[in-house]
Amino acid sequence: MIKIGIVGASGYTGEELLRLLANHPSAEAVVATARAAAGKKVSSIHENLKGLCDLTFEEPDYEKIKKECDIVFMAVPHGTAMDAVPEILKDSKCKIIDLSADYRLKTDVFEEVYGMKHKAPIDAVYAIPEVHPEVNKNLKDRLIANPGCFPTGATLAAAPLAAAGLLKSVIFDSKTGVTGAGNTPSATSHYPNLAENIIPYKLTAHRHLAEMVQEVSRLQPGFENVSFTPHVIPVSRGILTTAHIETTEKLTTADVKKMYEDYYDGKPFVQFAESVPSLANVRGSNFCHIGMEADARNNRVVVLSAIDNLVKGASGQAIQNMNIICGLKETEGLWFPGLI
Amino acid sequence: MIKIGIVGASGYTGEELLRLLANHPSAEAVVATARAAAGKKVSSIHENLKGLCDLTFEEPDYEKIKKECDIVFMAVPHGTAMDAVPEILKDSKCKIIDLSADYRLKTDVFEEVYGMKHKAPIDAVYAIPEVHPEVNKNLKDRLIANPGCFPTGATLAAAPLAAAGLLKSVIFDSKTGVTGAGNTPSATSHYPNLAENIIPYKLTAHRHLAEMVQEVSRLQPGFENVSFTPHVIPVSRGILTTAHIETTEKLTTADVKKMYEDYYDGKPFVQFAESVPSLANVRGSNFCHIGMEADARNNRVVVLSAIDNLVKGASGQAIQNMNIICGLKETEGLWFPGLI
Amino acid sequence: MIKIGIVGASGYTGEELLRLLANHPSAEAVVATARAAAGKKVSSIHENLKGLCDLTFEEPDYEKIKKECDIVFMAVPHGTAMDAVPEILKDSKCKIIDLSADYRLKTDVFEEVYGMKHKAPIDAVYAIPEVHPEVNKNLKDRLIANPGCFPTGATLAAAPLAAAGLLKSVIFDSKTGVTGAGNTPSATSHYPNLAENIIPYKLTAHRHLAEMVQEVSRLQPGFENVSFTPHVIPVSRGILTTAHIETTEKLTTADVKKMYEDYYDGKPFVQFAESVPSLANVRGSNFCHIGMEADARNNRVVVLSAIDNLVKGASGQAIQNMNIICGLKETEGLWFPGLI
Amino acid sequence: MIKIGIVGASGYTGEELLRLLANHPSAEAVVATARAAAGKKVSSIHENLKGLCDLTFEEPDYEKIKKECDIVFMAVPHGTAMDAVPEILKDSKCKIIDLSADYRLKTDVFEEVYGMKHKAPIDAVYAIPEVHPEVNKNLKDRLIANPGCFPTGATLAAAPLAAAGLLKSVIFDSKTGVTGAGNTPSATSHYPNLAENIIPYKLTAHRHLAEMVQEVSRLQPGFENVSFTPHVIPVSRGILTTAHIETTEKLTTADVKKMYEDYYDGKPFVQFAESVPSLANVRGSNFCHIGMEADARNNRVVVLSAIDNLVKGASGQAIQNMNIICGLKETEGLWFPGLI
Repeated sequence: MIKIGIVGASGYTGEELLRLLANHPSAEAVVATARAAAGKKVSSIHENLKGLCDLTFEEPDYEKIKKECDIVFMAVPHGTAMDAVPEILKDSKCKIIDLSADYRLKTDVFEEVYGMKHKAPIDAVYAIPEVHPEVNKNLKDRLIANPGCFPTGATLAAAPLAAAGLLKSVIFDSKTGVTGAGNTPSATSHYPNLAENIIPYKLTAHRHLAEMVQEVSRLQPGFENVSFTPHVIPVSRGILTTAHIETTEKLTTADVKKMYEDYYDGKPFVQFAESVPSLANVRGSNFCHIGMEADARNNRVVVLSAIDNLVKGASGQAIQNMNIICGLKETEGLWFPGLI
Repeated sequence: MIKIGIVGASGYTGEELLRLLANHPSAEAVVATARAAAGKKVSSIHENLKGLCDLTFEEPDYEKIKKECDIVFMAVPHGTAMDAVPEILKDSKCKIIDLSADYRLKTDVFEEVYGMKHKAPIDAVYAIPEVHPEVNKNLKDRLIANPGCFPTGATLAAAPLAAAGLLKSVIFDSKTGVTGAGNTPSATSHYPNLAENIIPYKLTAHRHLAEMVQEVSRLQPGFENVSFTPHVIPVSRGILTTAHIETTEKLTTADVKKMYEDYYDGKPFVQFAESVPSLANVRGSNFCHIGMEADARNNRVVVLSAIDNLVKGASGQAIQNMNIICGLKETEGLWFPGLI
Repeated sequence: MIKIGIVGASGYTGEELLRLLANHPSAEAVVATARAAAGKKVSSIHENLKGLCDLTFEEPDYEKIKKECDIVFMAVPHGTAMDAVPEILKDSKCKIIDLSADYRLKTDVFEEVYGMKHKAPIDAVYAIPEVHPEVNKNLKDRLIANPGCFPTGATLAAAPLAAAGLLKSVIFDSKTGVTGAGNTPSATSHYPNLAENIIPYKLTAHRHLAEMVQEVSRLQPGFENVSFTPHVIPVSRGILTTAHIETTEKLTTADVKKMYEDYYDGKPFVQFAESVPSLANVRGSNFCHIGMEADARNNRVVVLSAIDNLVKGASGQAIQNMNIICGLKETEGLWFPGLI
Repeated sequence: MIKIGIVGASGYTGEELLRLLANHPSAEAVVATARAAAGKKVSSIHENLKGLCDLTFEEPDYEKIKKECDIVFMAVPHGTAMDAVPEILKDSKCKIIDLSADYRLKTDVFEEVYGMKHKAPIDAVYAIPEVHPEVNKNLKDRLIANPGCFPTGATLAAAPLAAAGLLKSVIFDSKTGVTGAGNTPSATSHYPNLAENIIPYKLTAHRHLAEMVQEVSRLQPGFENVSFTPHVIPVSRGILTTAHIETTEKLTTADVKKMYEDYYDGKPFVQFAESVPSLANVRGSNFCHIGMEADARNNRVVVLSAIDNLVKGASGQAIQNMNIICGLKETEGLWFPGLI
């Protein structure tokens, strides 16, 4: 059994790691840290784990983690992971999968976008497995930057066209569930504010835009004409990305469909919707469902992707990455359907 | 025009008073206090009032209020109204309608239930107009205790049977929208906690139980066999009260329906549902819709009442009380339908 | 009192007309037709109107309507209004406000988009009052084409930039409440399908696109680079339109704000959000709230508009149009806040 | 591998069986029937199963099922199972787990409650495993009546007190998600009718009452003072049962808690909430979470149980029963957490 430590296990992504690992045949959580909850049973906070998890939250102790764990998931806010990462990597064989933003961007871009000095720049491997074949069991790097939720949905929606060099402009109009904002109550998550409403925010300059530009331009070098507007919808889980794509050539829906099917051939977690993808069909699962329609009038295509922001957009993809770098089957512990 | 002051106007009940007064032909809000928001335009906080309200939030200044206002609504938490009420009543002609709990219960009951010393006991008139004919334009008292939201729904559901002395036991199983808990974000109002969920709380000992006992026993002297269990449902507004009533006699549905229709004859805000009442049909309005079914097997009847907790359960009933004590038509400014 | 007939009064827009007219000081509904509900009390179907509406649904009888009504609202599906309109206009003084799609588009465009022969082409006046100053009390035409819900939100979001000739491309990514699809249960409106979900549809070719192109190009002649993708969100009422606008010049947020404020100066129903507009703030009301942000990186601006699809997007705008053509104050009966 | 046939696999309970079996280590679905969908890929209807299920819906062919299946789940409406059950049992070794109501009640009670003649009375074993130890791998009967959703939640809430003979009266005030009403769109499931609302129905005489009386009186012989009022809440999945219980003795919360813990000791799917149980914590899982509070004033206790109506209230319990009668571990394929 692969021994897992989770740093920051009291939040949503920590809970999801514990939920998914509760059923993983080859890995088990052995340490779960959470400062504010230290000393409490994990299942007294995450009550869905009652009967399934006997861990107790601990104060973070990196020496203990390095001794007991093979893989460490950092499920902490940005700016926090960078404090622990070098300490955990040093004099250990631990590999780290960082769910925070700290190692996703080039250092200078990170510092500009997040408005802080990076305390511990280290080379990391950014990993959406479906588009990054360089992530595999022979990977030498010990630090995986697990992608952001919006960039995962966006990149999966645009990758085949980007890889074909066909993008002229892309607007990602994304709609996310509110768990993306964490489990601390706020005005946005206040039920009467969100129910029967939709809350757009950071209309032109959300932090995840830099990550999208980085990933799309990696596939189509030089292409940076990416825009991104997120909205919170009255939904707990899920991101629907509506990608409004202007292409350099006129394409039919069948052309685009074929291109996407070929690109994602052999990628078990990408599936194609009968018509449009639905958050319900991927809820709680690691799947990404995709749909699309070309505009008959011009060089445009609308591509839709649906993921669960906490699973494929965070903890599920983290476990998928763990599976891959540990030489397990990519789908291990993750091969179950969405909860309609 | 009746001049209105609202103390504590930044919360939900304050906003609702302003919303309702925006359309009242004979009254207008002239002062709106809110410490934390003092100096800000009311419509910059309550954006639904943009174009309709030019007031600016002020620090509470009771001398100013006494000079400028005929009626003062206290839309503050319990324990706070009692600080201001004696000051406002003194050397003024202001009448106060207190939406807090401070003057609803006998002082000793208040002190026990709310766990605090009452700083300023004053005789007040508790007023659900449909069951308290003593509230009228000749009322000498200048302090109206506006009923709690749950007790309003519960009392309206049980009053006709209580007035007929037919109650043997009553269990109010109430389902409320989350605005009842105020506009400060909390774990209960955190969208992912409440959506697709229902949160029961204070299963046997909610503070409003004392108010229910007081009101039901006023109608059926000596009867105190009242139980109350509230639940928060994923709804912003509204209370559905399911009253499980054991009666001293066997009654048919038709018997009960007739009794309720007679009791509420001439009460414009009580209406009877075709089958079961719906929160949608009373949303935003001052109506209470009622439905019922007698149990063919025994001496039981289930009565349902639906109100909007912020309107008939708070600010609408406050304005209804204002209308009555000011000699206006009871329905003035309140005679509009629910928003389906 | 202006006498009103409503043809097709059992649906959502019919109900909204009745709800709004219940409080209109200068107009009253005197006839409400609905074939399937004929003979039933209106308030037995629209229970929110209990106590407020004594009408009984009738079979449509246009001779009766012509005798009794000054204004007729057609609240029927497209393809149905055209059957009645000529009959009502003939030998009468009735004016018609048609909420259906039948008279919004040029006949040839209508026939192509709606895939049917137009049985009764008649000149009509398309009327979003904020952008169509030609709609006024001296209007000679007796047939008003009340705009579609999506085109209303879209046009209001783009009009000032269009009127200034600054549009280069516009993508309307719209999010609508499900009442837009009517009150007949369907797979889309089935609660488990929509709750915790978002349903995009007609990704590139919704019927309302033609109406948007017509209206935007009326303001910026020759401009037709308009795209439109609608989504149903888990919301009953409201449309948030996210307009992704490419402009011919670089503009700052302040520039755009100023342009919009000037354009909508003196238009009482258009208000500007403090940051982003919210469906909650316009719910049940005739207001349109607008917000915007220019993209610092390029010639782009994101403009947001929020309306209630059943009010400003249908029945409220219909009454606003009635007010205007009848010489009443534009805001009469509509000057109340949204229901948060 | 145990070979499974599912009759009526296009509905919610059919889908849930397929979802759960997709991950069951010792059983696999080999036949899925659905008349209306025959010939279509299962995953084209249940899109959450894309990648996970290669079955195609078939017309029901009981001879084929008897040849290919060890266990048959009947996921059909009441009145339908009785047509197929005798045919499947005849000349086969198949065991049937019937999720419909056809075999839950004594024949005469069934005929009265469901208003139809029973076409094929056969002895069946009613099985809530936590309260029916007679269900085990040595069971000779080949027909299991899988309990109704409401009776499961209700029985689990009352069983320990019933088994101790302490019940004097019980009112089950139940709140259910709308999937309980099936996947055909209806007025109740129409989003604008249910969202921001709660719909009580069959206030005193729901069909499941007979099943509750049967089960509670089996535990406390002679006790029939059971009432039941269901409500649909704006939730897709889950039933919260609020059991208002009058006891024959005064009990403290600690007394009751101890009694429940003892009764459910060794029952892995029953867990106790820290304070009150939550639908979120059991969503998608086979768990039942329980909480309670005794009323300090009298002989009353309020007990709460939370289940997922489609899992512990239907398909999960069906698989739990299958596991037990097949000699597998009770938790096999079901031992995963709820989806918060």
